[in-house]
Amino acid sequence: MTELKNDSFLRALAKEPVDSTPVWMMRQAGRYLPEYKATRAKAGSFMDLCKNADMACEVTLQPLERYPLDAAILFSDILTIPDAMGLGLTFETGEGPRFSNPVRTEADVNKLFVPDPEGELQYVMNAVRTIRRELNGRVPLIGFSGSPWTLATYMVEGSGTKEYAHVKGMMFDRPDLMHKLLDTTAQSVTSYLNAQIKAGAQTVMIFDTWGGVLTPRDYKEFSLRYMQQIIDGLIRENDGRKVPVMLFTKGGGQWLEDMAATGCDGLGIDWTQDIGEARKRVGDKVALQGNMDPSILYASPERIREEVKTILATYGEGSGHIFNLGHGIHQHVNPEHAGAFIAAVKEFSPQYHK
Amino acid sequence: MTELKNDSFLRALAKEPVDSTPVWMMRQAGRYLPEYKATRAKAGSFMDLCKNADMACEVTLQPLERYPLDAAILFSDILTIPDAMGLGLTFETGEGPRFSNPVRTEADVNKLFVPDPEGELQYVMNAVRTIRRELNGRVPLIGFSGSPWTLATYMVEGSGTKEYAHVKGMMFDRPDLMHKLLDTTAQSVTSYLNAQIKAGAQTVMIFDTWGGVLTPRDYKEFSLRYMQQIIDGLIRENDGRKVPVMLFTKGGGQWLEDMAATGCDGLGIDWTQDIGEARKRVGDKVALQGNMDPSILYASPERIREEVKTILATYGEGSGHIFNLGHGIHQHVNPEHAGAFIAAVKEFSPQYHK
Repeated sequence: MTELKNDSFLRALAKEPVDSTPVWMMRQAGRYLPEYKATRAKAGSFMDLCKNADMACEVTLQPLERYPLDAAILFSDILTIPDAMGLGLTFETGEGPRFSNPVRTEADVNKLFVPDPEGELQYVMNAVRTIRRELNGRVPLIGFSGSPWTLATYMVEGSGTKEYAHVKGMMFDRPDLMHKLLDTTAQSVTSYLNAQIKAGAQTVMIFDTWGGVLTPRDYKEFSLRYMQQIIDGLIRENDGRKVPVMLFTKGGGQWLEDMAATGCDGLGIDWTQDIGEARKRVGDKVALQGNMDPSILYASPERIREEVKTILATYGEGSGHIFNLGHGIHQHVNPEHAGAFIAAVKEFSPQYHK
Repeated sequence: MTELKNDSFLRALAKEPVDSTPVWMMRQAGRYLPEYKATRAKAGSFMDLCKNADMACEVTLQPLERYPLDAAILFSDILTIPDAMGLGLTFETGEGPRFSNPVRTEADVNKLFVPDPEGELQYVMNAVRTIRRELNGRVPLIGFSGSPWTLATYMVEGSGTKEYAHVKGMMFDRPDLMHKLLDTTAQSVTSYLNAQIKAGAQTVMIFDTWGGVLTPRDYKEFSLRYMQQIIDGLIRENDGRKVPVMLFTKGGGQWLEDMAATGCDGLGIDWTQDIGEARKRVGDKVALQGNMDPSILYASPERIREEVKTILATYGEGSGHIFNLGHGIHQHVNPEHAGAFIAAVKEFSPQYHK
């Protein structure tokens, strides 16, 4: 494989010295970019775009053409695994994802299986291979998956939800069934991420978007436990280099210590945390990624620059920080504001790495 | 005024001994009850129901007829204040609240004023007086308002939002304007809650539904500061009895110490906190209200009873706990499950008050 030209992202994850704080944005390939919308229009449906390796590669690289980002992230969706399990994923405009066959009964759970990452999910691996080749060592490629609990919310509800009636109903009343569902899903995620690593992903991130809607007890039993299972089963070295793992539970700031104890290398944190406090809490155990409020990109470039300075100062000196938003970039953000953000990280962070 | 027959709610807020843990439910008068839906259908629009003192009283008392609740809460909406400021509130079916005149410019902010609680908002005070009379001392009546920040999100966005583009845009780029808006709103809330107290509310609660979407710095500057301003201006004794104040910031569990330092009497906490840990953190400063996951009411009565036992044990012995859900009751809950919840609190809590 080609040598990495810019490995500051991986160095920061390993808490090795860097010249400036590496930066990328969750959902950096997305609807806020006109060039993304153009490719998306050509592709057909959202899943058509995910399933076309060349187009998925094209949109993955688009933000790197615009901005001096320090990582690329596979363009895909967290719901590829349940789709490959036969749940029938569609995206209705303005409605979000929908499964035509949600998992509601014991028979439904028993039908679930671990998809073959080079079978039903080969289109994802093809995208990883294509992107890795086209990146040509420019920056590392991040692979990813949803967490088992987050996938379960969509699998059981069949769509997004505010009340979690079905998925929490199953969790509360049939914890045995929920554990079975989560175990099959965790096995699937493990095999899926390992295949991404073999296909060329240099680091992987697990997105636990909905872990934060659980009680502390339920979070540990139904979300964190299965992320731990995945981490225990991941390939941790490839091509002679460590493959770091990042966890991100939105709204999970109070559980950082528990998350850091899983053996992951980095934690994503949302903007409701103070990143300086978070650093004190996790000590030298893990790197931290975050944590600017994505809504600040609606403010002026001057104000965005101020916020970047504040977050850099709050994290303080030394390596172990990957600058990012605390959640995905919003779709109505002006791309120039995203550019002002990234430029500010490049401008103001070197003083913290002397 | 009539002597209170059941004052366990007020005693728990004062951390005085009680025989059992008092219990009520946020949104206990609401759509999960068929009798509510019947009254609502007769009333016309949602705001018609709020503005009709007899009907508002009727729905306020409905859950007390079904369940042995220890408090009643005024039936109203958090958006009455901005509506009285002339922003034009409507509720579209399935869409949530909408303001026809959102506050977006300096001129818009300058037009805001403190509504007369016995003028534009007299319908609320009439409802308070009617409910208090009809309660006849059965249980205390809780008055309430939205927090200034929470009201601001609706006032500036004009509706519910996921991205907070406008309201955070103003907060980030024109903090002076946002502070002016919040100050006028805080003055309005203070006058509104004081009028509710004079009209008969025996305690008041401030709902900060959206404080949890802020960074810790912004929370203190734009939400907590104005709740403090309100608390400093509230009538704290009426009819020879203390009028306790409760604060509830959804997703604000990490800021409990700061909230407790405002001089409030009680804190509502959502289910993402461990109530035993929360108790350790706030010490003897305030009472705690909560914190059962509202989605557990979708589970079986047996499972609901187990959860009640766990939360009672987690809080532990002694007064200072008001049992509640960590957020409003969901609309599709079976009323019998709500009954099982309340019965379980009555059955299992006395052992913690010996």
